[in-house]
Amino acid sequence: MLDRRSLITAGAAVAALPAPAAAQDAATAGPQPGSATAASPGGVLSVEVTADKDGFVAYSVNRLGKPVIAPSRLGFLLTDARKLERAFGILDQTVTGHDDTWEQPWGERRFIRNRYTELRLQFQERWGLMRRMDVVFRLYDDGLSFRYEFPEQDNLETVRIGAELTEFNIVDAGTAWWLPAFEYNRAEYLYNKTPISAVGVSQTPLTMRLEDGTHLSIHEAALVDYSGMNLRRVEGGKFRAMLTPGLTSAAVVREAPFHTPWRTLQIADQAGGLVESSLILNLNEPNRLGDVSWFKPMKYIGIWWDMHLDTRSWNSGPKHGATTEYTLRHIDFAAEHGFGGVLVEGWNVGWDGEWFGTGWGYSFTQPYPDFDIERVAAYARSKGVEIVGHHETGGNAFFYEQQLEDAFALMRRFGWHTVKTGYVADAGGARVATADGQSALAWHESQAMARHHQTVVETAAKYQVAVNAHEPIKDTGLRRTWPNTITREGARGMEYAAWGQPANPPEHEPNLVFTRLLAGPMDFTPGIFGMETRVPAGVATTWAKQLALYVVIYSPIQMAADLLENYEANPAPFQFIKDVAVDWHETRVLSGEVGDFVTIVRKDRNSDAWFLGSITDENPRILTAPLAFLDPGRRYRAEIYADGPGANYTTHRTAIDISTREVTSADVLTLRLAPGGGQAIRFVPLGRVRR
Amino acid sequence: MLDRRSLITAGAAVAALPAPAAAQDAATAGPQPGSATAASPGGVLSVEVTADKDGFVAYSVNRLGKPVIAPSRLGFLLTDARKLERAFGILDQTVTGHDDTWEQPWGERRFIRNRYTELRLQFQERWGLMRRMDVVFRLYDDGLSFRYEFPEQDNLETVRIGAELTEFNIVDAGTAWWLPAFEYNRAEYLYNKTPISAVGVSQTPLTMRLEDGTHLSIHEAALVDYSGMNLRRVEGGKFRAMLTPGLTSAAVVREAPFHTPWRTLQIADQAGGLVESSLILNLNEPNRLGDVSWFKPMKYIGIWWDMHLDTRSWNSGPKHGATTEYTLRHIDFAAEHGFGGVLVEGWNVGWDGEWFGTGWGYSFTQPYPDFDIERVAAYARSKGVEIVGHHETGGNAFFYEQQLEDAFALMRRFGWHTVKTGYVADAGGARVATADGQSALAWHESQAMARHHQTVVETAAKYQVAVNAHEPIKDTGLRRTWPNTITREGARGMEYAAWGQPANPPEHEPNLVFTRLLAGPMDFTPGIFGMETRVPAGVATTWAKQLALYVVIYSPIQMAADLLENYEANPAPFQFIKDVAVDWHETRVLSGEVGDFVTIVRKDRNSDAWFLGSITDENPRILTAPLAFLDPGRRYRAEIYADGPGANYTTHRTAIDISTREVTSADVLTLRLAPGGGQAIRFVPLGRVRR
Repeated sequence: MLDRRSLITAGAAVAALPAPAAAQDAATAGPQPGSATAASPGGVLSVEVTADKDGFVAYSVNRLGKPVIAPSRLGFLLTDARKLERAFGILDQTVTGHDDTWEQPWGERRFIRNRYTELRLQFQERWGLMRRMDVVFRLYDDGLSFRYEFPEQDNLETVRIGAELTEFNIVDAGTAWWLPAFEYNRAEYLYNKTPISAVGVSQTPLTMRLEDGTHLSIHEAALVDYSGMNLRRVEGGKFRAMLTPGLTSAAVVREAPFHTPWRTLQIADQAGGLVESSLILNLNEPNRLGDVSWFKPMKYIGIWWDMHLDTRSWNSGPKHGATTEYTLRHIDFAAEHGFGGVLVEGWNVGWDGEWFGTGWGYSFTQPYPDFDIERVAAYARSKGVEIVGHHETGGNAFFYEQQLEDAFALMRRFGWHTVKTGYVADAGGARVATADGQSALAWHESQAMARHHQTVVETAAKYQVAVNAHEPIKDTGLRRTWPNTITREGARGMEYAAWGQPANPPEHEPNLVFTRLLAGPMDFTPGIFGMETRVPAGVATTWAKQLALYVVIYSPIQMAADLLENYEANPAPFQFIKDVAVDWHETRVLSGEVGDFVTIVRKDRNSDAWFLGSITDENPRILTAPLAFLDPGRRYRAEIYADGPGANYTTHRTAIDISTREVTSADVLTLRLAPGGGQAIRFVPLGRVRR
Repeated sequence: MLDRRSLITAGAAVAALPAPAAAQDAATAGPQPGSATAASPGGVLSVEVTADKDGFVAYSVNRLGKPVIAPSRLGFLLTDARKLERAFGILDQTVTGHDDTWEQPWGERRFIRNRYTELRLQFQERWGLMRRMDVVFRLYDDGLSFRYEFPEQDNLETVRIGAELTEFNIVDAGTAWWLPAFEYNRAEYLYNKTPISAVGVSQTPLTMRLEDGTHLSIHEAALVDYSGMNLRRVEGGKFRAMLTPGLTSAAVVREAPFHTPWRTLQIADQAGGLVESSLILNLNEPNRLGDVSWFKPMKYIGIWWDMHLDTRSWNSGPKHGATTEYTLRHIDFAAEHGFGGVLVEGWNVGWDGEWFGTGWGYSFTQPYPDFDIERVAAYARSKGVEIVGHHETGGNAFFYEQQLEDAFALMRRFGWHTVKTGYVADAGGARVATADGQSALAWHESQAMARHHQTVVETAAKYQVAVNAHEPIKDTGLRRTWPNTITREGARGMEYAAWGQPANPPEHEPNLVFTRLLAGPMDFTPGIFGMETRVPAGVATTWAKQLALYVVIYSPIQMAADLLENYEANPAPFQFIKDVAVDWHETRVLSGEVGDFVTIVRKDRNSDAWFLGSITDENPRILTAPLAFLDPGRRYRAEIYADGPGANYTTHRTAIDISTREVTSADVLTLRLAPGGGQAIRFVPLGRVRR
């Protein structure tokens, strides 16, 4: 024998169950079976939501009249009460429109239009506890999203969610780019490229290309006080949400009223459409911090790559990197070449001994004896340079929170506005507080860690500090609401070129653009000229690709990650790193395919200059770049950093061809990318075009 | 920046980490990097286990010299301490042999040979906490297994396991038959058949056929006080254990010393080899209950199919099935036709109202007023028939445990020795006790539920009751140790033919044999002659296949599941159900392919009769069955129940051809199976063969 629910779905009345009788009693009022539909403002996407006679709720999505998402169930398992899945009827439905434009304080574009149709459905159980659950859909032309809202009610006060049953039933076959979820090393894996039908449990964003060429990415927006969503493929193209576990059998514990994060689906004809979408940001709440002009987008250098090359160390001793002297040298360099910040890793005690990787022992106020923090601070201030604070927690969020106020107060005293946090959890999880005041390990994307990251960001804001989290929780667009959430890691960065097994292959960055980077900015730390590292592959790009990454990978702070001597020895290509902007008025994707190549152009927010970055995987490409994005009335000097003759990512990485030419918006450039190569261009406005 | 572990694996010394230095200090004593190998007694399988210089432990498996499992990591994440994964060296290794034969009190074969090579590896961390973890491999010629053992030690007392990192890295591509894990309806799904590379998260047993024809099944043995293991495909053919979550962030909490269940890999050239293997049973501990002769394998009938047809109900009211009168009629029928038991579902209060499916309200001692339990018990005893107790808990293990002693004491008073339990958890999980004496919902295969099922079995044993659990935890061979663990459900049974959406297709039973049934007996409840049900497909087999299922699907209790009038109206095919044995001296698979067809022969334990069952999927088959298994000195009367002319599983299900012929072991029978058909044969020994 088995679940009697199925007896119900078989369609005949079963007297053992109160459902049908109760439902009939309510036949003339209250929640009813039914359906609702709505379409995006431009009519591109439409959704249909049904509550069937057995009380199951499902949604389906069409794009230009063609099914994209087949009927997909909604609901929850609770750990202390009957599940929220069957018995629902529709109590009310409303459709409203929204259209406004908002301004980012910094970002990949200055103005963002937020235009959507909202379908709000009030569901209530038709029998039993008569609990309420609303589902709100927002339909954009470039994607849709929905979230659950739990109103205040008597029969559902504390909501303990054991599992979220949300489904995403992809109608079509296709290709998926995905990272396995529940791996100990968080997001730092190479992407799997498989048929959709071969995905296991995926992190989000999960990017797919259907057989008809439609591109789709599933992710979430506004992950606040909830558990991160993963996607478990059930069968075929049907995925179900799989929440990151919590400290109890409930993945999420919340008091009603509350709502979940938005479950998002970006949908575009071309891969570039996913990148150009602002769906995730639009679904976040407006700025709650007000003026954050104390944070300025900038480029920075640091004491960092040395450690990855193993020529210096984080911990104390003869190889210690974060010495006063070495830091002053970096400050000088930054001041000379126009960098706003100097990152110093390993400045504070806690890096020695067994507690490494557990976080016990890290102080965020006590420097190592060979790091004279007062002298460093004074010297940096005198040179107009900020030190980028560094708070490696070893994943011990619990211990970090105890020092949070003091740590940020110290930074405030020195006038340092950017901190790089780290959660290298060698223990296998992040340490968080438990209900009894003790601590336990939790997943990086658990509700507890979502709360922790929120605490850090809000505390940092009080001290005018902006946060760049490494080994972070995933990005879900919270920078709109708390714009001191500036960037993060959350993928394999440049350091894997130093010692990765394997190192990052050339397809890694074209993968990132259409997957991880759909979530938000990444502190990838490009700009390496010294291509030999501790592994045979070394840095598997050309120099030109290193430069192009500054345009391709968006982040409001960008590191020039190499050793100073490598920049001093190569002033010509270094010039691009000095010139490239980090804050943008506008961003467009000229061309691209997931994991293959991409060309992105961005307009500087602080001048009329444009920048182009184009990168490829292991295959050479000849791409055309129509310059129609330029101001048609103007001439520009194009400063071109192209792969040189014979360049490739294995044996001729430093072959670079730097040239200038004058162009207008009528020109079409031919970009010749070497294997593992790229191209970076700065377009400097000159005079008006003569008619 | 990211996990510094990887810096270590990159191969160069990193002074920040104490590892290499500490390891060098210990270079002459204590745990060391190294490897160990062992082979199965017949040399078929071999394993190599290594602890590399970075302290990672991995195993790999060869079969007849060819790799089957590529290097696969071992280890754990703990929720309160540094993970057990890196830093291990080998402290000691021993190889021993074992060979004995043991007798089952009942089973699919009487004697089982337990012949294996044991490789015991003592690991210890080479730096830091110097924790100990042993891994024990047992190598059979038909499979291998391993488990982790945690010795008593100072630095690891309470072991809180967040995740088990055990990998199974299948070297070859192939086909997999699997059920998705973490679905709310437990094991009651149709099997997915996909490439291995398209498995998501699978329950176990997970059965695979590699491209070279090798068959492989991953499961576990002796799941006691631990969480059930699922398999998450990471990439390609690489799977990682995914433990069922617990009530805290730890899936498992145990005090050292303890050991995990065995992780098992059955490996065979042919599909039938998986079925013939006794690996799972061999890995369980010997009988701890001693004499269980109070339990006799038997066939039974019951008040059950009526409810699935919706002609009677579990709950009270005019359709109530479990009335005194209807039960007495079943007792008469059982006595007349030689059935040992009568199952009566819905006999006890608790089936009415909203609490259905939550378990609150079920009494296991209080009958409904129209069920005169004393009269029923007296009448059954007078007829030599036992009532099969029924304890539907609605998944409320917590509430059931409070009544357990009383419930079994009642059965003992009546002399009833078999109970069917049920865990239909409409709330989405099973309710278990929490540390504070309250209750919460947990997964069906959580550590808490493993404990619950163990409590039920051990309590039942005290009262001489044998347990047949429905919606159970998976079978891992515990019947060897507690032989009152007789059978269970744990897959879609016959009731899906009554109302399933979809109903069980013809391939379902050939799937079950090579997947779910590798774990142990199943109470499938075959024997339906009334083929029209509440769904259009009805019972999608022929009559002959219904009979063959009694031989193909092993269970020490077998239900004749149909309504009594359908047996009374069809005495000829019913004769096989009356004749077929339920306890076996020997079992052999004559032929079979996963999901396609299978032919199994079994020798009655209580006579010299043999039985043959052969079933197919939707395709007709002509199979040959050499009778070499019969005693070569004897003649037998073969009583053959074959598909009749034109038989098929859609329109001609009742076409059956019953005949007898005399055969010897020199004969080869041709089995003609209709689409969705089968064949059942009883071989009755006659006189000696004349020379």
